[in-house]
Amino acid sequence: MVEAVADIGLIGLAVMGQNLILNMDDHGYTVCAYNRTTSKVDDFLANEAKGTKIVGAHSVEELCSKLIRPRKVMLLVKAGAAVDAFIDQLLPFLEEGDIIIDGGNSHFPDSIRRAKDLEAKGILFVGSGVSGGEEGARYGPSIMPGGNPKAWPHIKGIFQDITAKAPDGAPCCEWVGESGAGHYVKMVHNGIEYGDMQLICEVYQIMKEGLGMSHDEMAAIFEEWNNGELDSFLIEITRDILKYKDTDGSPLVEKILDTAGQKGTGKWTGIDSLDRGIPVTLIGEAVYARCLSSLKGERVRASKILTGPTYKFEGDKAKFIAELGKALYASKIVSYAQGFMLMRQAGADYNWNLNFAGIALMWRGGCIIRSAFLGKIKDAYTNNPELENLLFDPFFQQATAEAQTSWRTVIAQAVQMGIPTPALSTALNFYDGLRHEILPANLLQAQRDYFGAHTYELLDAPGKHVHTNWTGKGGNVSASTYDA
Amino acid sequence: MVEAVADIGLIGLAVMGQNLILNMDDHGYTVCAYNRTTSKVDDFLANEAKGTKIVGAHSVEELCSKLIRPRKVMLLVKAGAAVDAFIDQLLPFLEEGDIIIDGGNSHFPDSIRRAKDLEAKGILFVGSGVSGGEEGARYGPSIMPGGNPKAWPHIKGIFQDITAKAPDGAPCCEWVGESGAGHYVKMVHNGIEYGDMQLICEVYQIMKEGLGMSHDEMAAIFEEWNNGELDSFLIEITRDILKYKDTDGSPLVEKILDTAGQKGTGKWTGIDSLDRGIPVTLIGEAVYARCLSSLKGERVRASKILTGPTYKFEGDKAKFIAELGKALYASKIVSYAQGFMLMRQAGADYNWNLNFAGIALMWRGGCIIRSAFLGKIKDAYTNNPELENLLFDPFFQQATAEAQTSWRTVIAQAVQMGIPTPALSTALNFYDGLRHEILPANLLQAQRDYFGAHTYELLDAPGKHVHTNWTGKGGNVSASTYDA
Repeated sequence: MVEAVADIGLIGLAVMGQNLILNMDDHGYTVCAYNRTTSKVDDFLANEAKGTKIVGAHSVEELCSKLIRPRKVMLLVKAGAAVDAFIDQLLPFLEEGDIIIDGGNSHFPDSIRRAKDLEAKGILFVGSGVSGGEEGARYGPSIMPGGNPKAWPHIKGIFQDITAKAPDGAPCCEWVGESGAGHYVKMVHNGIEYGDMQLICEVYQIMKEGLGMSHDEMAAIFEEWNNGELDSFLIEITRDILKYKDTDGSPLVEKILDTAGQKGTGKWTGIDSLDRGIPVTLIGEAVYARCLSSLKGERVRASKILTGPTYKFEGDKAKFIAELGKALYASKIVSYAQGFMLMRQAGADYNWNLNFAGIALMWRGGCIIRSAFLGKIKDAYTNNPELENLLFDPFFQQATAEAQTSWRTVIAQAVQMGIPTPALSTALNFYDGLRHEILPANLLQAQRDYFGAHTYELLDAPGKHVHTNWTGKGGNVSASTYDA
Repeated sequence: MVEAVADIGLIGLAVMGQNLILNMDDHGYTVCAYNRTTSKVDDFLANEAKGTKIVGAHSVEELCSKLIRPRKVMLLVKAGAAVDAFIDQLLPFLEEGDIIIDGGNSHFPDSIRRAKDLEAKGILFVGSGVSGGEEGARYGPSIMPGGNPKAWPHIKGIFQDITAKAPDGAPCCEWVGESGAGHYVKMVHNGIEYGDMQLICEVYQIMKEGLGMSHDEMAAIFEEWNNGELDSFLIEITRDILKYKDTDGSPLVEKILDTAGQKGTGKWTGIDSLDRGIPVTLIGEAVYARCLSSLKGERVRASKILTGPTYKFEGDKAKFIAELGKALYASKIVSYAQGFMLMRQAGADYNWNLNFAGIALMWRGGCIIRSAFLGKIKDAYTNNPELENLLFDPFFQQATAEAQTSWRTVIAQAVQMGIPTPALSTALNFYDGLRHEILPANLLQAQRDYFGAHTYELLDAPGKHVHTNWTGKGGNVSASTYDA
């Protein structure tokens, strides 16, 4: 009879899993480690885990037998079939009230399904986003757990101990909501991460190509920005990357292939936003930008065929760099406003009571998008939990008002220089669109009624559907529905 | 015993169905009409169909008994469950080799499924896009049939008779490909239609709000454009709409509520493009623009809170209007280039041998996006069926080269005026991105490797994955895959 010694079991010893285990060990928890290729367990115990309380298991059965009840098993395995396979393997060795936590990048509909299926079997399922990469997992990630609320009291202690802490000491982990809410919020987090990275890339290209700045000059600007309103992990690492020299003394980043994949959570966020009808344009453009980057051969051939402008920037460089910072900041505000719009809609669609201040707090530290800025978002939703749009908060309203002239200058210049700025541009277009009481969709509705008899509504009588015989020809049958 | 008298049966007597029947009747075919609410059949026969050879049926059984073999039944019913329900109702009364044609706006994965299921039952399924709205259905739509190729010889005559004809007399209907290819191409057609409409809306808003033009002045410009390279159905109807006065003498379009729905094929195209990794940014933005338009209340409140620019246009109006036409034209070229990129990828994914010149020809007449321009696209793919990108065709390369300066001026002006141009902007950004041999995704890959040990490739050694320990801290475990 094996003695139940471990507070939690963890399956999956890639970098995230290993580092989470070491993190839990640091905080006094006894963790049992398991991996399908069991030699990895032995290697881990003999190396990274040497001298710790960490124990190992060579089978799922052994793992479960070593866990204190209610058993808590966390999966850090590839999203998809592997998660279902491990759940199936675990079930024979678990009892009612035991907890399975999926800490991978699962798609939220899978977590909705798993929470429901496991609830019927008496097992408490938690789908938890974990962000922060290698470093975060080791020293304090952002953790976004959702699922069966009965699990939360049992895992709250360990999760809030190992998570990152905001500057005020608050743990960057709170209960997100039922069913798939944890992975949903993690998905949006990742989408926003796509957007933040794309925005920085565009600014980098403007500096490099448009202003002809050296990598050290750019690093100095990112250093400066990191001490102001743009203070964030991604700005900080961009500074480090720009400074990093290869063995020949030249910037390593310039030698890296400029193609990025996009098969994951960013794409899911884009698709979800289209499905839900929420204009999350910045994440959409960020995903598309990765798609375009990956068409390297086509771009190389296009670069020899397609014509660009001859315009060169000849203004005040220092002034323009300051404007660039403003444009980046304002675009980032729009991206977060769009992300919170999407979560608000999903919360309504699934009846999740999402706590937006809590979500901002969870992202405040530990994760890839951590920033000073998220403290302001937390404040906005703390001041007004019913805030309709982040842009309506006085702080952000003021911030965009101050930035908008610079923002316009930057985009107008980039357009003239021929430097692509899909994310910066779509952010401003969204801002200007949202500001417009009247958009030109009236013409669009007239067109639809003209060619398809789809009817339209009148400004002064919304809800009433009208059809006009625009040509004087044709019939008066409206086509708003097919009625067979 | 009922005599088989009809060449084809048609189910669904909404406007599209009625008009297709009348069109077939015009061309000498005997059509049997059926509708679930059978009083519609009687009404139709007593009114619109009076004095024609059209016959009616009051049940699916009666419909099938009146059809000459192989029976051809065309459904014009609401996409989704209604199509499956009618197929189920039809099956008992059909025999091997009979043909079911779904002419509605079905989602292509449904057509892939139906083609497969019905093939197993010996029934030939055709999923066919039909575009052209009320008028098109009556006097010549664009028809995009795909599915079981054995059906084509039996329906080719009737389809090519009732379809629109290009200016050179060629019928705007050709076999698209197997399985779901017909509805796929129709979906992309509709996505492009979303894009074309959004582009026109943006140009309209710039004219109205930025240049202060009257509706009659705008109508005159659209009239002029319709006689040039922009010659197209949507430009033509925009002219008519802008000219159309309400009973009080003011432009009717100004009284129409500026909100547009987006639950259909445009959304599907956007989602499909994200899924397939093809940057179809213009359709994506067009769908998002409809989403934003529908948030009317939020926009009205935003219009009172968010700050816009004070800049006013003070240049040469006539010159700017000409530039606007160029910007519209170039953006439209990009949108079609993106749409054809998407179809190329789908063709590869599903092993459909899509004939791109044929697709351009099908869209050349009859449908909502019909234009002179599509003749040029047909020429491009006729000249080079392996054309990698529409923008690489000499005609379109030249057209965008000539337009690009105007395009930049228009967007820079709109940005300064605070007028949203999401579609015009994303088109230029795509053009500039495609032109760039080097995009800033190298920085993005460095960021991913920094925070997540995701590895990157080097420009001079693609295929080899490298990890750098950017900070000097942390481990050397790469996270490119979770290996549990």
